[in-house]
Amino acid sequence: MNEQPRTVRMHPRDNVAVVLNDGGLPAGTALPGGPVLREKVPQAHKVALSDLAPDDEVLRYGVVIGRAARAIPAGSWVHERLLKMPDARPLEGLPIANAVPPLMPPLEGYTFEGYRNADGSVGTRNLLAITTTVQCVAGVLDVALARIRRELLPKYPHVDGVVGLEHGYGCGVAIDAPDAHIPIRTLRHISLNPNFGGEVMVLSLGCEKLQPERLLPPGSIPIGGEGSGHVRLQDEQHVGFASMVDAVLATAERHLARLDRRRRETVPASELVVGVQCGGSDALSGITANPAVGACTDLLVRAGATVMFSEVTEVRDAIDQLTARAATPAIAQQMIDQMAWYDAYLARGGSDRSANTTPGNKAGGLSNIVEKAMGSIVKSGSAPIAGVLGPGEKATTRGLLYAATPASDFICGTLQLAAGMNVHVFTTGRGTPYGLEACPVVKVATRTDLARRWHDLMDLNAGRIADGEASIDEMGMELFRLLLDTASGRRTWAEHHGLANGLVLFNPAPVT
Amino acid sequence: MNEQPRTVRMHPRDNVAVVLNDGGLPAGTALPGGPVLREKVPQAHKVALSDLAPDDEVLRYGVVIGRAARAIPAGSWVHERLLKMPDARPLEGLPIANAVPPLMPPLEGYTFEGYRNADGSVGTRNLLAITTTVQCVAGVLDVALARIRRELLPKYPHVDGVVGLEHGYGCGVAIDAPDAHIPIRTLRHISLNPNFGGEVMVLSLGCEKLQPERLLPPGSIPIGGEGSGHVRLQDEQHVGFASMVDAVLATAERHLARLDRRRRETVPASELVVGVQCGGSDALSGITANPAVGACTDLLVRAGATVMFSEVTEVRDAIDQLTARAATPAIAQQMIDQMAWYDAYLARGGSDRSANTTPGNKAGGLSNIVEKAMGSIVKSGSAPIAGVLGPGEKATTRGLLYAATPASDFICGTLQLAAGMNVHVFTTGRGTPYGLEACPVVKVATRTDLARRWHDLMDLNAGRIADGEASIDEMGMELFRLLLDTASGRRTWAEHHGLANGLVLFNPAPVT
Repeated sequence: MNEQPRTVRMHPRDNVAVVLNDGGLPAGTALPGGPVLREKVPQAHKVALSDLAPDDEVLRYGVVIGRAARAIPAGSWVHERLLKMPDARPLEGLPIANAVPPLMPPLEGYTFEGYRNADGSVGTRNLLAITTTVQCVAGVLDVALARIRRELLPKYPHVDGVVGLEHGYGCGVAIDAPDAHIPIRTLRHISLNPNFGGEVMVLSLGCEKLQPERLLPPGSIPIGGEGSGHVRLQDEQHVGFASMVDAVLATAERHLARLDRRRRETVPASELVVGVQCGGSDALSGITANPAVGACTDLLVRAGATVMFSEVTEVRDAIDQLTARAATPAIAQQMIDQMAWYDAYLARGGSDRSANTTPGNKAGGLSNIVEKAMGSIVKSGSAPIAGVLGPGEKATTRGLLYAATPASDFICGTLQLAAGMNVHVFTTGRGTPYGLEACPVVKVATRTDLARRWHDLMDLNAGRIADGEASIDEMGMELFRLLLDTASGRRTWAEHHGLANGLVLFNPAPVT
Repeated sequence: MNEQPRTVRMHPRDNVAVVLNDGGLPAGTALPGGPVLREKVPQAHKVALSDLAPDDEVLRYGVVIGRAARAIPAGSWVHERLLKMPDARPLEGLPIANAVPPLMPPLEGYTFEGYRNADGSVGTRNLLAITTTVQCVAGVLDVALARIRRELLPKYPHVDGVVGLEHGYGCGVAIDAPDAHIPIRTLRHISLNPNFGGEVMVLSLGCEKLQPERLLPPGSIPIGGEGSGHVRLQDEQHVGFASMVDAVLATAERHLARLDRRRRETVPASELVVGVQCGGSDALSGITANPAVGACTDLLVRAGATVMFSEVTEVRDAIDQLTARAATPAIAQQMIDQMAWYDAYLARGGSDRSANTTPGNKAGGLSNIVEKAMGSIVKSGSAPIAGVLGPGEKATTRGLLYAATPASDFICGTLQLAAGMNVHVFTTGRGTPYGLEACPVVKVATRTDLARRWHDLMDLNAGRIADGEASIDEMGMELFRLLLDTASGRRTWAEHHGLANGLVLFNPAPVT
């Protein structure tokens, strides 16, 4: 092996380092200024820098990620079976808004080409969305969508596409249960996503629990009458299947005609609403891609944009850092409330935050949720936390927001869409072909090997940081520019291939 | 109005009757041998046959469906606001297997043309199913499915289609939570549905929580190696997006070639595994379509087939009738256990069985869940209950089974597919264009008006019972014959139009 051994230590207090070399490092490798490896250590995995006695604290990011389950000599591979996970940090006695970062200098002059909406928001795509109240209508909608794509879209070349907002909610659910407001407001707010241009069109059945008036408050759609954006399949005028599909097409065409008249215009970067997320993480996520996203987040916040980070179980173990960074005590308290709600939700189902890590995380070097969380929150950069959104809430302030969502990639993405996201950033170490129909998803690889194999799925290779070819700040700026280009219409790889995942709603209430 | 007034009283003790006439009956109508209507009563709604004092019991099906909220004079419309709902029947002290119906005479000589499988089950369709471990792969699968339909299916004309078993489960979920076995076994058993011919093909990502080995126990699929039915996107041999899609196509083609050699053969009706369900119910459901299904259920059971009825919240209020009908005390106890589990599940989410009824049910004349349940269990006919399945379990015995599922149409259908359903019967009064890709769905209308308007969506009109044109037994036999024809390959209206709803998993465990 000719390659120089490369490892990274995240904090001066750390007693483990992470191997950066593709393919890992063999036994016998002498680390510069460190121990000789006692065994092979895979890429992205940890090596002990000093001898650890049983129960000694293991530190990464300057944070205790666990205690040694037995004696671990220096140069050993510190895998997850050698670490005892710490208990969850109590939600009492946390530091509250006592380390609010100073305001960063504004970043001016950056713009993108977007679609201005009547409500002041800006779209990055010009899409017709068809909202559904219930799964019952999905079969009819799919037939209609195929016809819209074939027969109508060619006539409206300024429209980027049509999206069916299908889901499993709407009926057969405890719609008056305490937590039912979460899926309902999620669907409502997705319908109002800036990429849909305010052209809300609803397809409903008729007898379902989630009536259109409940989904969308009165006034937001003109149900019935001329120019209606609402088709209800059980209405008596529908005789035969074709009449249903024809009604969907006729209504869709009215919306398409209006959408087709829209044009992109130059708008400031402050109109971006960026959701950041990671999925299929490995130990490099916290070293390459997530820090690059964090640097980009800082640029976005400096430019006046909105950035949301999310994933309750992946910030839970870093809650003390985040409450300290909250802009105000009220915001810190909102964060604590979201953590407490989720703790209770998991406990109700006989689970806790440790359910988060996956086999792939562990194979990728992430020993437990504490270590994963420390690498996850790096995406939030260094700005003050300016607001907190409950699941399904819509963002109304700018700056860095914490959008409390499950860590499930699809539930998180769905909730960020509801919050008003117009560009999505997704980092991955293990690799996932994630995509959304409603919003462009910029995928960032944590390692060069993945970026090379998935050359037409990954939009950016942050593995170059591990390779020593780019700094974190350089990658952050590159991502920032890529987001502006993407917002202006540059297609992501997922869009190029037509890759899109389904919406997955967060419904903590029962089904009936 | 020239039409004779027609009403039905379900039981001699009943003090309400249901209006059958299309369009209802106007005020002033004299019911034969009954009161004069004091107001207009819509079709499928109830009229008081005698004066009711406040708190008097209101009886339908010979069962108390509520108490009068105020004085209700004879001839009044008894709508849901006039009924106080009874408390849930306690699960202690129920009659246990003390009214087991006598064995019905066997029904011999009925057959259908099906696909025999190696495991002894029989398919009614010859479908390639592609099982997925996680939503992450759905985008790639959709691209592959489009190519399979375009490029491969024309080469294999004896294959009816390809089904992507996509879902929101697999990662971002508390996979070790106490209730996580439900979604996992559901997906496992759906993969083994008789309509898929035992050709299990799996598409996985690599790092997800639901590893293929966990989804399908060792031995059920040959992962890796020659003839493998498994494609894993993160495997190192996949370089570039096209190589992933090509791998899916190559694997699919091996399965298609084997499926294409299969032919239908004559099998006894006892090979049917019928799931019965109702959705979008009205008060006629319990008078026309559901009794017709009940008569058909009896024919199926007499022919040695398997019939599953389901929907916990729609049988909960009739639990005493069902435990009495259970073939053994052990089966009665299993029913009680399922009710108790669901009561606790709903309570955990701050809800109860009353969350079941929909605005459409109420508009259709069903005042509350007690009345709805009495009309729902009629689908089970009159045979002894021979077994109970927990959600996601696979049927292993014949006869009449209670498959405990939520009442949500799509969750119930998904769980009945997991149980091994090869034909689905779905009754509806309000109307729903329900369909499944994996299994033919025979839709039965409760009223002629719906059957007329939805003439190419409803497969059978049980409204003819209300019209006095057919008896319940005649409709039951007609449905029985239609099921045999459908099982033999006759297309349902949903299949004709390509109408299919998505799978919706029942996951009572938390997401992370």
